[in-house]
Amino acid sequence: MNRLEWSALDAQERTQALTRPVQRVADQTRSAVAQVLDAVRSRGDSALRELTARFDGVVLETFEVSAEEFAAAEAAVPAPLRAAMAEAAARIDTFHRAGMAQPYAVETAPGVVCERVVRPIGRVGLYVPAGSAPLPSTALMLCVPAALAGCREVVLCTPPRADGSADPAVLVAAALCGVDRVFKLGGAQAIAAMGYGTESVPSCDKLFGPGNSYVTEAKQQVAQAGAAAIDMPAGPSEVLVIADAGADAAFVAADLLSQAEHGPDSQVLLLSDSAALIEAVENELERQLATLPRAAIARQALAASRLIRVDTLDDAFAISNRYAPEHLILALRAPRDWLPRVEAAGSVFLGDYTPEALGDYCSGTNHVLPTSGAARAYSGVSVASFQNFVSVQSASADGIAAIGGCAVLMARAEGLDAHANAVALRMEKAA
Amino acid sequence: MNRLEWSALDAQERTQALTRPVQRVADQTRSAVAQVLDAVRSRGDSALRELTARFDGVVLETFEVSAEEFAAAEAAVPAPLRAAMAEAAARIDTFHRAGMAQPYAVETAPGVVCERVVRPIGRVGLYVPAGSAPLPSTALMLCVPAALAGCREVVLCTPPRADGSADPAVLVAAALCGVDRVFKLGGAQAIAAMGYGTESVPSCDKLFGPGNSYVTEAKQQVAQAGAAAIDMPAGPSEVLVIADAGADAAFVAADLLSQAEHGPDSQVLLLSDSAALIEAVENELERQLATLPRAAIARQALAASRLIRVDTLDDAFAISNRYAPEHLILALRAPRDWLPRVEAAGSVFLGDYTPEALGDYCSGTNHVLPTSGAARAYSGVSVASFQNFVSVQSASADGIAAIGGCAVLMARAEGLDAHANAVALRMEKAA
Repeated sequence: MNRLEWSALDAQERTQALTRPVQRVADQTRSAVAQVLDAVRSRGDSALRELTARFDGVVLETFEVSAEEFAAAEAAVPAPLRAAMAEAAARIDTFHRAGMAQPYAVETAPGVVCERVVRPIGRVGLYVPAGSAPLPSTALMLCVPAALAGCREVVLCTPPRADGSADPAVLVAAALCGVDRVFKLGGAQAIAAMGYGTESVPSCDKLFGPGNSYVTEAKQQVAQAGAAAIDMPAGPSEVLVIADAGADAAFVAADLLSQAEHGPDSQVLLLSDSAALIEAVENELERQLATLPRAAIARQALAASRLIRVDTLDDAFAISNRYAPEHLILALRAPRDWLPRVEAAGSVFLGDYTPEALGDYCSGTNHVLPTSGAARAYSGVSVASFQNFVSVQSASADGIAAIGGCAVLMARAEGLDAHANAVALRMEKAA
Repeated sequence: MNRLEWSALDAQERTQALTRPVQRVADQTRSAVAQVLDAVRSRGDSALRELTARFDGVVLETFEVSAEEFAAAEAAVPAPLRAAMAEAAARIDTFHRAGMAQPYAVETAPGVVCERVVRPIGRVGLYVPAGSAPLPSTALMLCVPAALAGCREVVLCTPPRADGSADPAVLVAAALCGVDRVFKLGGAQAIAAMGYGTESVPSCDKLFGPGNSYVTEAKQQVAQAGAAAIDMPAGPSEVLVIADAGADAAFVAADLLSQAEHGPDSQVLLLSDSAALIEAVENELERQLATLPRAAIARQALAASRLIRVDTLDDAFAISNRYAPEHLILALRAPRDWLPRVEAAGSVFLGDYTPEALGDYCSGTNHVLPTSGAARAYSGVSVASFQNFVSVQSASADGIAAIGGCAVLMARAEGLDAHANAVALRMEKAA
């Protein structure tokens, strides 16, 4: 862990302190992914079979999960876990539903009505990774808003296990949301299949979900080729905690560790105006690490972590806005008073009793969030991520009489006479 | 013009009829743009000076438009054009303002409140091209929503003219919206400057606006490098008209021509269940072309156009949804009745008196719209394009007692014990 005193750092050291390790995509990764994409695009299912054998070590004749497999998954998942997933899905539904955009119409001039209508994106592809462990929670985070949007076709890919089956909890999560087209496909080949389509996998308009560097690169390449849109760029998960002297060091340490256990490249930052709190958190980290199964991973992430003492909480918010964290925990005595200071973050957790893990699973917010500073210009997944907003206008004869002159004048100024004509012709007839 | 009979086409011919010409980015364009980006990133303003001399043929010491230049522009723009731009800006403001997303909060469980707050993206960069003619209308379409979002810093780049000045109408449009940081920079170098920042141009979080293939490629490369987000992928402009037997052939022809005059690569499609209407439109096209200053450009675009007779209007909507046009004109007797059939389009124009040109300038909707089929998964520019949506959650001691168990169970199932601990620790203290 790196303890830093913000006021003692010069500009360059401050930049360094907030710099994420560059996630440089190796040329090798890029070309390996390009090869996978080419293979799937040109040879479809046959390429998927080869790639699945090579990368997942399992020979599959077909990829789509059958009704029997869904039934087996239902039987395999313990009832309490199933109930927890249903409970989480219900709260995710409640929060996301309440934020759904509504169509609207406004008369912008007499006889001119402009509207926005909302349409589900037709076909969406969801990726649920299973790196260190399968993530049924991610299935919920993607399937619930897709279902709320009403997408005509929802396809989910998740890597096959060594025995050729899909993770039962992921299947149960998908089924809970009415998503029944699940394919046992992982990695870049899953993204290629959903982006380009194969004999068995439908091509999708937009792809969602986190993944390793191959999955991320595949999403980028598919988007660049114009084959499908993607939800957002992705990088390692990260948390920034702003804690005051009154914060509970054990809670703060637990939050840092729950980020650190994700992977060795997870980003962990603590900002506090209290040196005593920082020291107490360090001690707690050691104490709690001793009991963690994933301590080795967490230690690697913590080695690159930064515990920064700031002179004032104002400084802490300036730093946080500059860093634009995926998760921002405000372990403060009056956290709501500080909320207006947050300019850029994926998701914010207010106060001592709101650990990030609540948002990861079941508060109701989405956990698919912008990382690597993308929170400066991207938002987390919501129902809107699965929708198109189409503008509509309608002018009556009176309407074009009222505003046509404005269009004609501007069109002529831009040298676009056919534009002017299209309006002028109507104005003549309307007159 | 290509007249086709939809029912006579086989599947492959249908696909061919709806295929846009591939906008393949030449390797040469890609590497030329990469070089420009590298130069600007490493040498800043000095590279901008060289590139502007080379590509715009003008030597500029500084790029930012001065107060004197703004004043000169105000004097140079005729009063009627200024009034038309103000009128258009007011309607764009009215429509966009009415659709702004509101923050909301919902209690998802006793003691657990989830919220969405809305924040302006901090620094945005707008590009206003000046290819065949400068486009003050595009300045309005970008500046109005940026102002409504309340972005802290709004920067606009537009190419310098041969005499080193910026187009006065573009400056007046920017000033109308309160945007006063305008740089005389065009092409890939403008995108590089806003994406990476130079001594004089601030680096921006998100870049907006249309442009030629170099601008488009530069936006893609900057986005890929993670330097800035972009509004959407861009391609040539396009219109699809669905007209019935009662449509006015002169109106329809005028609409097709106002798309065709944009450029030789503009896409123009007409679908009708009336062969007589299609024939009448063809005749009108010839008649109107004779009077158009940009007839040569329009003829090139029309050569690749498709006039398709369909058996029924149902077929027409199926085709349109498959094509997902940027602009969709419904020249139908009961256009509103058909609106629910529209699944994917950028902007829709209802009825005989609503030419696309109204939306291009002054109905109130935005004209920065998804092209090349991107309307399947992207929406046009709106205030939301300039905002971040941040989720916030807050649990009380009662709240974590109520939902903590769900999180603990799911975290353990995913093998993430530190997540479970972070929740369990609070549950103990809350109990």
